[in-house]
Amino acid sequence: MGLFSKDIKTLDDLFIHMLQDIYYAEQQITKALPKMIAKASDPQLKQAFQTHLGETEEHVKMVEQVFRMHGHDPKGVTCPAIDGIIEEAQDLAGEVADPEVLDAALLAAAQAVEHYEITRYGTLTAWAKQLGREDCAGVLHQVLEQEKSTDQKLSRIADSKVNAKAA
Amino acid sequence: MGLFSKDIKTLDDLFIHMLQDIYYAEQQITKALPKMIAKASDPQLKQAFQTHLGETEEHVKMVEQVFRMHGHDPKGVTCPAIDGIIEEAQDLAGEVADPEVLDAALLAAAQAVEHYEITRYGTLTAWAKQLGREDCAGVLHQVLEQEKSTDQKLSRIADSKVNAKAA
Repeated sequence: MGLFSKDIKTLDDLFIHMLQDIYYAEQQITKALPKMIAKASDPQLKQAFQTHLGETEEHVKMVEQVFRMHGHDPKGVTCPAIDGIIEEAQDLAGEVADPEVLDAALLAAAQAVEHYEITRYGTLTAWAKQLGREDCAGVLHQVLEQEKSTDQKLSRIADSKVNAKAA
Repeated sequence: MGLFSKDIKTLDDLFIHMLQDIYYAEQQITKALPKMIAKASDPQLKQAFQTHLGETEEHVKMVEQVFRMHGHDPKGVTCPAIDGIIEEAQDLAGEVADPEVLDAALLAAAQAVEHYEITRYGTLTAWAKQLGREDCAGVLHQVLEQEKSTDQKLSRIADSKVNAKAA
């Protein structure tokens, strides 16, 4: 980011900046998930993280597609928000010894990541529509729906077993 | 946080840690909102931030109430996630000169904060129930519903005017 240079002049500039933000975020999530898979004990939770890793790799390609549809080369910008969310997840995981309590902590961390993605894809979809880019909005909305569905799946796993096993 | 000391041994410890996390987060949000109010131009957006500042001050007290109900003194722990989300919001705001584009950026930043709170209060409510603390869960759920309602209000302001004015 070109700090204090007031580089963002239009909603289109803001849209591209946010796309760069989520592109970086998706890449960081791709790096963080294998560590979470390795740490998870519950087979269903492990499998949910594994499935989400595959989806995240797919989302990276979908964001690249939106960049190109909108005439830009895919590029990321360092974003303190996802870095902070992932750092906090790793700090927290490092503090828990019991594997069942750790599963509850990992699941909560994954939901914090999902909610960051939900808010960003929600904003991006709205801005794409406002810019008259229904094509971009369609792809972004598809990713948004998948993130929401992952969050709901994680809530079901938490409610049905992980939290009970941790208690 | 006592990094690498494996201080979190039970779901109860994890619940208290997450309560300390959100207590710190709410306090940081209380400090960040006045800056966002000062930067916002749209009167409805400014008013929504102002209302949310009042609610956030109330949430600090409600979290303190949960600490006490559960036999703990209110205490915060530094949390990289909210620090990252707020840092990103301030960086982004610093890059936008046009007041109407800035409003769209501020609104998106506020929704990222809301989603962080939604995920944390969702988790805390589930853990409180699992720990048999329906009293704590009741208060946490009340905050959760208010955060969801603020997020929806922000989406309505975005869709009805702020994004259109920015475009």
